Amino acid sequence: MGLQQSLYEQLVPEARASGISKLNLFIVAIVLASFLFLALETEPLLNTDPVWIRVFSIFNICVLVIFTLEYIARVWVAGVDPQYRGFGGRMKYMTRFYPIADFLAFAPELIVMAMGGGGSLLALRVLRLARLIKIARFVPAFDALAAALRRSGSQLLTSLAVALALVYVSAVLLYFVEGVGGEHQETFASIPRAIWWAVATLTTVGYGDVYPVTPLGRFCAAIIAIAGIGVVALPAGVFASAFSDELRERRERGQRL
Amino acid sequence: MGLQQSLYEQLVPEARASGISKLNLFIVAIVLASFLFLALETEPLLNTDPVWIRVFSIFNICVLVIFTLEYIARVWVAGVDPQYRGFGGRMKYMTRFYPIADFLAFAPELIVMAMGGGGSLLALRVLRLARLIKIARFVPAFDALAAALRRSGSQLLTSLAVALALVYVSAVLLYFVEGVGGEHQETFASIPRAIWWAVATLTTVGYGDVYPVTPLGRFCAAIIAIAGIGVVALPAGVFASAFSDELRERRERGQRL
Amino acid sequence: MGLQQSLYEQLVPEARASGISKLNLFIVAIVLASFLFLALETEPLLNTDPVWIRVFSIFNICVLVIFTLEYIARVWVAGVDPQYRGFGGRMKYMTRFYPIADFLAFAPELIVMAMGGGGSLLALRVLRLARLIKIARFVPAFDALAAALRRSGSQLLTSLAVALALVYVSAVLLYFVEGVGGEHQETFASIPRAIWWAVATLTTVGYGDVYPVTPLGRFCAAIIAIAGIGVVALPAGVFASAFSDELRERRERGQRL
Amino acid sequence: MGLQQSLYEQLVPEARASGISKLNLFIVAIVLASFLFLALETEPLLNTDPVWIRVFSIFNICVLVIFTLEYIARVWVAGVDPQYRGFGGRMKYMTRFYPIADFLAFAPELIVMAMGGGGSLLALRVLRLARLIKIARFVPAFDALAAALRRSGSQLLTSLAVALALVYVSAVLLYFVEGVGGEHQETFASIPRAIWWAVATLTTVGYGDVYPVTPLGRFCAAIIAIAGIGVVALPAGVFASAFSDELRERRERGQRL
Repeated sequence: MGLQQSLYEQLVPEARASGISKLNLFIVAIVLASFLFLALETEPLLNTDPVWIRVFSIFNICVLVIFTLEYIARVWVAGVDPQYRGFGGRMKYMTRFYPIADFLAFAPELIVMAMGGGGSLLALRVLRLARLIKIARFVPAFDALAAALRRSGSQLLTSLAVALALVYVSAVLLYFVEGVGGEHQETFASIPRAIWWAVATLTTVGYGDVYPVTPLGRFCAAIIAIAGIGVVALPAGVFASAFSDELRERRERGQRL
Repeated sequence: MGLQQSLYEQLVPEARASGISKLNLFIVAIVLASFLFLALETEPLLNTDPVWIRVFSIFNICVLVIFTLEYIARVWVAGVDPQYRGFGGRMKYMTRFYPIADFLAFAPELIVMAMGGGGSLLALRVLRLARLIKIARFVPAFDALAAALRRSGSQLLTSLAVALALVYVSAVLLYFVEGVGGEHQETFASIPRAIWWAVATLTTVGYGDVYPVTPLGRFCAAIIAIAGIGVVALPAGVFASAFSDELRERRERGQRL
Repeated sequence: MGLQQSLYEQLVPEARASGISKLNLFIVAIVLASFLFLALETEPLLNTDPVWIRVFSIFNICVLVIFTLEYIARVWVAGVDPQYRGFGGRMKYMTRFYPIADFLAFAPELIVMAMGGGGSLLALRVLRLARLIKIARFVPAFDALAAALRRSGSQLLTSLAVALALVYVSAVLLYFVEGVGGEHQETFASIPRAIWWAVATLTTVGYGDVYPVTPLGRFCAAIIAIAGIGVVALPAGVFASAFSDELRERRERGQRL
Repeated sequence: MGLQQSLYEQLVPEARASGISKLNLFIVAIVLASFLFLALETEPLLNTDPVWIRVFSIFNICVLVIFTLEYIARVWVAGVDPQYRGFGGRMKYMTRFYPIADFLAFAPELIVMAMGGGGSLLALRVLRLARLIKIARFVPAFDALAAALRRSGSQLLTSLAVALALVYVSAVLLYFVEGVGGEHQETFASIPRAIWWAVATLTTVGYGDVYPVTPLGRFCAAIIAIAGIGVVALPAGVFASAFSDELRERRERGQRL
């Protein structure tokens, strides 16, 4: 039980008073590297080059082996915790949130690869986003996101409703001014297309693919922009401030961050 | 009178301590769906397809029937409230703000349709925005918008005046630098056109349809952007913060949100 | 002296406990209208049309007459205040800030017009911006702008210095990555051009006339954008918050706004 | 020792209770001018003109001479401070942070120039950014930047992690919707390219070089923009607010700013 105990202390973040163990730091590094490689693998400039294809392939196999070993180890050491002892306890452990994410992070790709699929299927790659949850375990602040959502609750919903109403009304207005009247612009030819303009404008992203060209349309758009940008930024601001408050309170309570 | 009383409890939000009745939830859903369909109806890719035209037509008739029935029911159950009892009371009820919005949400289209107009007139579709007010009744936070406007009052007006002054002065400056002098750009050829640039820049939307190209114009624009973006965001920020304060206070007073 | 006294109460805002007199409201309206006409006058679609040219010409003469009469009246009623009594007092009054603005708002154009210049000289039109100061007299909040500048003082300067340093360093970085190395883009061919990119990016305006195209340039730009947008928004934010505080305090002290 | 003492009071900011000495003000002006010239020197419109080349060359030599003299003076007067007295003390002084920056600001260019290199090497110009540190010595607020980084510490890291995770997930989503499915856009052809879009959108820069064109892509992008802009602005906001707090506290403690 010496190995199980020391592995438990290495793998389970709650077993430590603070900080992160070397083994978990290694796993976080592997997850981050796997996100980097997931991104690079999709790049046409690289994924058509035989050398890079080989690098990607070897890296993926290494990652899958590491995550398989990690999963087996986690299930094994879970038994140190009385509630997950024995076969039934392990079953209970494996149906918890984090272990499911750990499982999704390697198993589907491994199974397809074992069956000769090569692990290159696109849908399987999406499952790699489950690895984000692997990191979340070590970053308690990801819990703070959920807490911030609860904390801002009705205020967030209300401001979101007001923001969406403003986006809709702005789009209807510009649809009538620019799409139906005025220059009959293609980009304002329907309300859904005008909504795309309204979102790009009221969030101040302003790609420049859609903008009013008639004097009346520009006048309305200017009024909407000056009056509305604060309102549409409201839900994001409410959430950001709740998240910030949550983090500060946790730090003040001396919680791990 | 049993039916009238129970319909009253279902239809009138003030009759409930908290939450929203199933019937009102259904009406909110219908309103939201009608906004979705209003948007889709204007999309050329859909409104030229006979199948979709049929779907839109059937949906519109259903919505009009539902809103007609809802309106009749609301007028009938209004009598539970002593101030709206009898024929005179009903008349008084029908000239209040929300009942007028309820009426505008179905009656004009129904009348035109009955007269063979097909309900496809554009101006009539705009009246559907009155349905937004139907929802506002169930979302007390829409009242908070008006309260936030009153609360921020003179501060909002002052910051708006300063923002507009900055937009005007920036536009005059760039008109002289880019439109009259410099490259004689079409897009800066007059102060109204330069105002369009100033709004797009100072709200940080930046579509990219208008921007200075001369070194002096870019120098002025850079100074204006760094110095001005906070000032133009001020009215929206003042309002957003007043709205946020209003919502928080209402929640603290234990008001329905 | 009855007329002088009642004109004094109409013209001098400090003579009233609160609000704005009807005469001053009229003058504010004339100033706002003159700004609207100044903008329209520069629009090629209008200023080539003989009807509009006539409208502009008549309006300008009316405005100049009104401002001339207003100026004479202001100088006359200034004598109600003991410190501006007599000829010497009037001279003293005419060299104060607001009376100079009142003078610049009509005199240069009137003189040129009297000499047959037609008042169409561009430089004279710029002097019309002095009319903004005419309004400032009635909007005490414009004083609050100066007070907010003093209040935020060193904090504003410091944050501005940091923002400018960040803009400069970002521009140098992208100049080396995109202009000298990489694609040798015209738009990054020198540091001043890269500064234009840096300002457009860090203020989040993002016109889209300049952006990095090489992978390394985009990587650097992404880091700069995520890390820097808050820092460059800092001076504007510091000033906006000082202005907002100033307005709130003035309202709490019961000052006119 | 009279000259050394008075030079010490002129050169070392800590020797004065407040403000900045005339000599240091001159050095700050030279540094700012050298940044202006560094920028202008890279401009093709100027650096191909023999007159400007001569101006740049003379200015650079003057700056190098001034900084050389300044460096020698600083090393000499450092001896006024007991800890830097004698040859060993001077050695100790020369390996401190600010003196190293002072050295890098002139020595490499001077050495290359002495060896006939003409000081035109690009890499040497980058070293001129070290002159920024020369200014930092006189602007105590630059220290406040580091203090703000420490102060916001874990909160900054956490919000940065959340922002980067949101950027990554948004990019993966749009890559699948716009790059793999939909229109097979070049600009969304890989996750790294989609990350460029995600950063431009979530920071609200929105250059307009990349944007979704399919209805589904626009729908996802709209949701991401409304929900995400507050989250990605969070790290910059956390830092900006910590920097602002730091500056206010320093001012309240009566520290030099």
